[in-house]
Amino acid sequence: MYAKDFLLSSDTARRLYENYARSLPVIDYHCHLNPREIAEDKRYDNIAQVMLGSAKDGGDHYKWRLMRTYGIQESLITGNGDDYQKWLAWAEVLPHAIGNPVYLWTHMELRDYFGFDKPLNPSTAKEAWDVCNKKLKTLTAREMIRQAGVMALCTSDDPADNLKWHEIIKNDASFTTQVLPTFRPDKVLAPDTPDFKSYLKRLGMAAGIKIKSLGDLLEALKRRMDYFDAHGCVVADQSMMEVPTAIIVEDEDDWEMINDDLVFDDLFEDLLADDYDNLDEYRIFCYRLRVISFLATEYKKRRWVMCLHYGVQRNVNENLADTIGPNIGGDVIAGTECGAELADFLSELDYNNALPKTIIFSLNPNDNRFIDSIVGAFQEEGVKAKIQHGAAWWFNDTRSGMRDQMISLAETGLLGCFLGMLTDSRSFTAYTRHDYFRRVLCDLIAEWIDRGEYFDDEETLKRMIEGICYKNVIEYFELAL
Amino acid sequence: MYAKDFLLSSDTARRLYENYARSLPVIDYHCHLNPREIAEDKRYDNIAQVMLGSAKDGGDHYKWRLMRTYGIQESLITGNGDDYQKWLAWAEVLPHAIGNPVYLWTHMELRDYFGFDKPLNPSTAKEAWDVCNKKLKTLTAREMIRQAGVMALCTSDDPADNLKWHEIIKNDASFTTQVLPTFRPDKVLAPDTPDFKSYLKRLGMAAGIKIKSLGDLLEALKRRMDYFDAHGCVVADQSMMEVPTAIIVEDEDDWEMINDDLVFDDLFEDLLADDYDNLDEYRIFCYRLRVISFLATEYKKRRWVMCLHYGVQRNVNENLADTIGPNIGGDVIAGTECGAELADFLSELDYNNALPKTIIFSLNPNDNRFIDSIVGAFQEEGVKAKIQHGAAWWFNDTRSGMRDQMISLAETGLLGCFLGMLTDSRSFTAYTRHDYFRRVLCDLIAEWIDRGEYFDDEETLKRMIEGICYKNVIEYFELAL
Amino acid sequence: MYAKDFLLSSDTARRLYENYARSLPVIDYHCHLNPREIAEDKRYDNIAQVMLGSAKDGGDHYKWRLMRTYGIQESLITGNGDDYQKWLAWAEVLPHAIGNPVYLWTHMELRDYFGFDKPLNPSTAKEAWDVCNKKLKTLTAREMIRQAGVMALCTSDDPADNLKWHEIIKNDASFTTQVLPTFRPDKVLAPDTPDFKSYLKRLGMAAGIKIKSLGDLLEALKRRMDYFDAHGCVVADQSMMEVPTAIIVEDEDDWEMINDDLVFDDLFEDLLADDYDNLDEYRIFCYRLRVISFLATEYKKRRWVMCLHYGVQRNVNENLADTIGPNIGGDVIAGTECGAELADFLSELDYNNALPKTIIFSLNPNDNRFIDSIVGAFQEEGVKAKIQHGAAWWFNDTRSGMRDQMISLAETGLLGCFLGMLTDSRSFTAYTRHDYFRRVLCDLIAEWIDRGEYFDDEETLKRMIEGICYKNVIEYFELAL
Repeated sequence: MYAKDFLLSSDTARRLYENYARSLPVIDYHCHLNPREIAEDKRYDNIAQVMLGSAKDGGDHYKWRLMRTYGIQESLITGNGDDYQKWLAWAEVLPHAIGNPVYLWTHMELRDYFGFDKPLNPSTAKEAWDVCNKKLKTLTAREMIRQAGVMALCTSDDPADNLKWHEIIKNDASFTTQVLPTFRPDKVLAPDTPDFKSYLKRLGMAAGIKIKSLGDLLEALKRRMDYFDAHGCVVADQSMMEVPTAIIVEDEDDWEMINDDLVFDDLFEDLLADDYDNLDEYRIFCYRLRVISFLATEYKKRRWVMCLHYGVQRNVNENLADTIGPNIGGDVIAGTECGAELADFLSELDYNNALPKTIIFSLNPNDNRFIDSIVGAFQEEGVKAKIQHGAAWWFNDTRSGMRDQMISLAETGLLGCFLGMLTDSRSFTAYTRHDYFRRVLCDLIAEWIDRGEYFDDEETLKRMIEGICYKNVIEYFELAL
Repeated sequence: MYAKDFLLSSDTARRLYENYARSLPVIDYHCHLNPREIAEDKRYDNIAQVMLGSAKDGGDHYKWRLMRTYGIQESLITGNGDDYQKWLAWAEVLPHAIGNPVYLWTHMELRDYFGFDKPLNPSTAKEAWDVCNKKLKTLTAREMIRQAGVMALCTSDDPADNLKWHEIIKNDASFTTQVLPTFRPDKVLAPDTPDFKSYLKRLGMAAGIKIKSLGDLLEALKRRMDYFDAHGCVVADQSMMEVPTAIIVEDEDDWEMINDDLVFDDLFEDLLADDYDNLDEYRIFCYRLRVISFLATEYKKRRWVMCLHYGVQRNVNENLADTIGPNIGGDVIAGTECGAELADFLSELDYNNALPKTIIFSLNPNDNRFIDSIVGAFQEEGVKAKIQHGAAWWFNDTRSGMRDQMISLAETGLLGCFLGMLTDSRSFTAYTRHDYFRRVLCDLIAEWIDRGEYFDDEETLKRMIEGICYKNVIEYFELAL
Repeated sequence: MYAKDFLLSSDTARRLYENYARSLPVIDYHCHLNPREIAEDKRYDNIAQVMLGSAKDGGDHYKWRLMRTYGIQESLITGNGDDYQKWLAWAEVLPHAIGNPVYLWTHMELRDYFGFDKPLNPSTAKEAWDVCNKKLKTLTAREMIRQAGVMALCTSDDPADNLKWHEIIKNDASFTTQVLPTFRPDKVLAPDTPDFKSYLKRLGMAAGIKIKSLGDLLEALKRRMDYFDAHGCVVADQSMMEVPTAIIVEDEDDWEMINDDLVFDDLFEDLLADDYDNLDEYRIFCYRLRVISFLATEYKKRRWVMCLHYGVQRNVNENLADTIGPNIGGDVIAGTECGAELADFLSELDYNNALPKTIIFSLNPNDNRFIDSIVGAFQEEGVKAKIQHGAAWWFNDTRSGMRDQMISLAETGLLGCFLGMLTDSRSFTAYTRHDYFRRVLCDLIAEWIDRGEYFDDEETLKRMIEGICYKNVIEYFELAL
């Protein structure tokens, strides 16, 4: 049946996991949970809603992709199909997913949250459905968070968002997990999307400024950062296809140009006139670079952590995007090589004393060793691993992906200072991924030990594992827990 | 001596292989066997002809590269040197090839076809020569195919080729292996080669059309597809350095342009006038994209499978190409990154309802995870894994190459729907590569099981292994066997 | 405590290492040792000077990067801080470096040279300091080289360098290790650096020529090569960010242009006039390609080996470079993809009969399989593995980096002809890296054996391991030892 020692392939691995890792609390420094659903303590009717969801209510695009691969009809994936039929479809697909983390995640969730510990397949689907749905009568969103031992989590929030749900949660003494906002200015960085103008309006209203120029925009962002700061924000997140210096890295003059506010007057005129035909790629890049440099400077002042997620090509299947929408499994790895650009970007910020604590995530696993080589070139006195290589992400959020990222990091830097796992998830049951990560971590460390590659004492090992599992995050993010 | 459990590193691996994989039939959905040699039931004088061959008669460029690396004179590699001297040279080189699949393939072929189970080296070369040559008195081409349990194989054929050899084989009741043609329009897609004009003539004659325009060409191709279809063809194969959208992916107008037949009138004028100086790269790309889009549409109508092989840089050693010719070991991996282009290509076809079942092969192993991310974004209701990531290819047709491809596929998709192995070979003894693959597959699955990462029942495992080894191909290619 | 079998994970691995690898002599065909320090038999005051050094006296940037990552103040890294405080800082950082080769190197050095075999950490730092410093009273530079069993080593020398230190060492009968110069024309290949003009002057003086044209420069280089040759030089080394054909690979005319000396008259006028604004990138590339093609031709005539190191982006942290200087840990992997260019470069040289024995090193580990595919396309009759893929380099000089390079090489070529390890180091204690490599090598070969993938006899295995560990280098470099 369910192997309790899965992913742990040696006695040493099992010992490290049991003694030092298993029961540690969770700090999830980056996720996409909806703070309103936490505040209102969301309930689910059935297990399909929890595990699969729908395009309308949100759900798990990892699972949707596998269902689509198996040829399941879209109505039973993201559509309005019957929940039980969806569940049966998923149970039919899952046994084919050998080696896929979703296979383990699904079973870990069934076991840890619902006490169901059989393999899920067509012949057990009905039983699982009944067991889980019964449990869901008492298993609310908050209860899931509680059971996973989550001390703190950081949601993803737009600068224009009102943080009232965070306030409500904070003021509710019955729920002790810290729920902190993350400043995520994706929309600010995408001036070439049709709803940018209306977004500026919304942002301006939130900040109490009418945004008519770059200066106005930056002032609005600053006010919103103050607002987020007052609500406990300690981290900002940028998502992008390429590193922002991508097209102008060759020419030093560009760096000066982007600091000249006058240059952007024209651009704003076009933007506010909805004149998208005028939006040449070059000016867009200048704008993005200018804004992100400004943001980095402000993050540094506030001691915030800057997360950079790059290497994603979104909605590549035009058909799928047109008929169902974004965030449903139509994103892929962007092969874009931007190693030189990343180094240039960090160097320029550093040179201007504007480089905050930074965590770098690339969706392309080929970038691992490059990123680790660069990380070691931009550290700072008095800060432990100021520039970090983030945990294996999305398509790499797997056993081999995690191992590759950690081996590369360990071989070129200090694994002992690593920040470890985050869920990046929209699901309340995704905390099992921390457990998955801890198993992979302990298994890897055990290999080094068993191969005689590490011989410091047990106490040091214990501290290292605790650090990577949660304590390094507390220190790095300067959390008050 | 010869370790029978090679590549199987655990009891579980040995059990899976022995019980579920070893004795399954072979379906080789892509190879380069000469149908005439099957029809005529080719015989060989000696083992050097079987294993090494020559530039004139064709042979194994994998082995030739290793001999060249060891500094063997070219006359004993691709030249007219004495066959026995060639064999001795190969026996001298082979012991240095530890870790190379050619080392195992050679020994597997010696054992499985010739019953010779000692290591091949200078001191055993004479004995092996004698044993094998004696066997070759009765071991014909068809006998090799029979012994390997091949139910069906797909050769590689030019659209202009006459398929009479396939007919002869089909009509010969004494040989039950299905030998199916593959539509391989490489020459159609290479208008910038000197013999293109004469090729158009040849193709036109086969189709009964005088080709003077793009319209004529497409009509000729359609007729040839009908002809291939009538001969049991179920698959087409495209080989290319880069994905066809490579240079025009940025501009939506290009997609419209390539559908305007008038645009190609000029091009055909230049082509038919042998005016190669006028053939700018851009027009070549437009032509290729136009033709391949047309072909894909037609493949889809016929329910054929489209194989895309890309990432090869051919004949990079000018000296070698000039003196010996193509296909002798002078090809290398092209580092070209065309991730975005691949996504764009598939999306455009899909949008126009012209995306057939497609198997993607890149020669660059760095593309693995990118391809797997893209594959999951282009599936279709009612078809199991319509867009597939093909097995590790050529330079990656190795233990680590196969493992990397399968781990990447498993971690991001459904390994249970994988189409498994193909030989891509010119040799009648290459079926041992299916055995090599099955061992690597069982060894990998065993690791997941032993690490507690899969816990469905034995019957499910059995079905999965059978599927990957041959049954998925039958279903996907809709073979009537 | 210290595990003597570290990195050896099986009985077979331990047997191979103990019986065939452990006690073999060392030939270090590429390092950065200072010949003067060997001639003068340098002594050290304390272990911090040996292991850490300073920017002024040189030192170990691997360790500096880790200290910087931990947030140690720069004065205790490259600065003038107290040596004992530096040592304590290093002892504090080291336990966090699990999985990093520096962790093992440090302990191997402490054990092998100083007899200290406890883990280094804050509580053992004082004891280690005392034990090592006592030993340093007798442990000189030459003694370290002797203890490591070094038969020969190749330093890195500028064409303008006087080789008197090499002469002194050669003439000193009390020291039997051969210390050979390497011709390293980095400065010749960097005309776009401010001190190029003064460098030409220095080079001209060494060669007895006033350099006013490309012709003068080439004549000077030729004379210096003769001088190096007379001092036993057998190898030249080129370090570059990109392969020299990078920007002009598309156009055949460029290859002709670069052989026209007149073209370079203008360039030299600008160079000698310090007119750097005129130095467009294109002319720089032409110059580099012209010079390196000339050098390769001359290397071939002299039967020298050409090492190509590419893929480094230097001094990316502008702040760090400005305040501390080069070679202190501010270099990173350049993501530049130059696969096509490398093939083109080798082909062009080969076509002109100007391709010497060549060893290719890329800092980007993603290039491994590409390089191995290309290596096999440019071999030569009568030379064993004339074009080689060099050992894993710098950021890849790790267990997984070495394994990946060797597995890729083995799977596509002949591992038996591999040249094995080099230190590339500035440190006299770096020979432990050869031991580290031999363990990784034996562990890998043992895996193949244990998995039944190799079954030739023990004598063949012994010869192969000896070859890779040092004998292949003797044959390839044609060393007279």
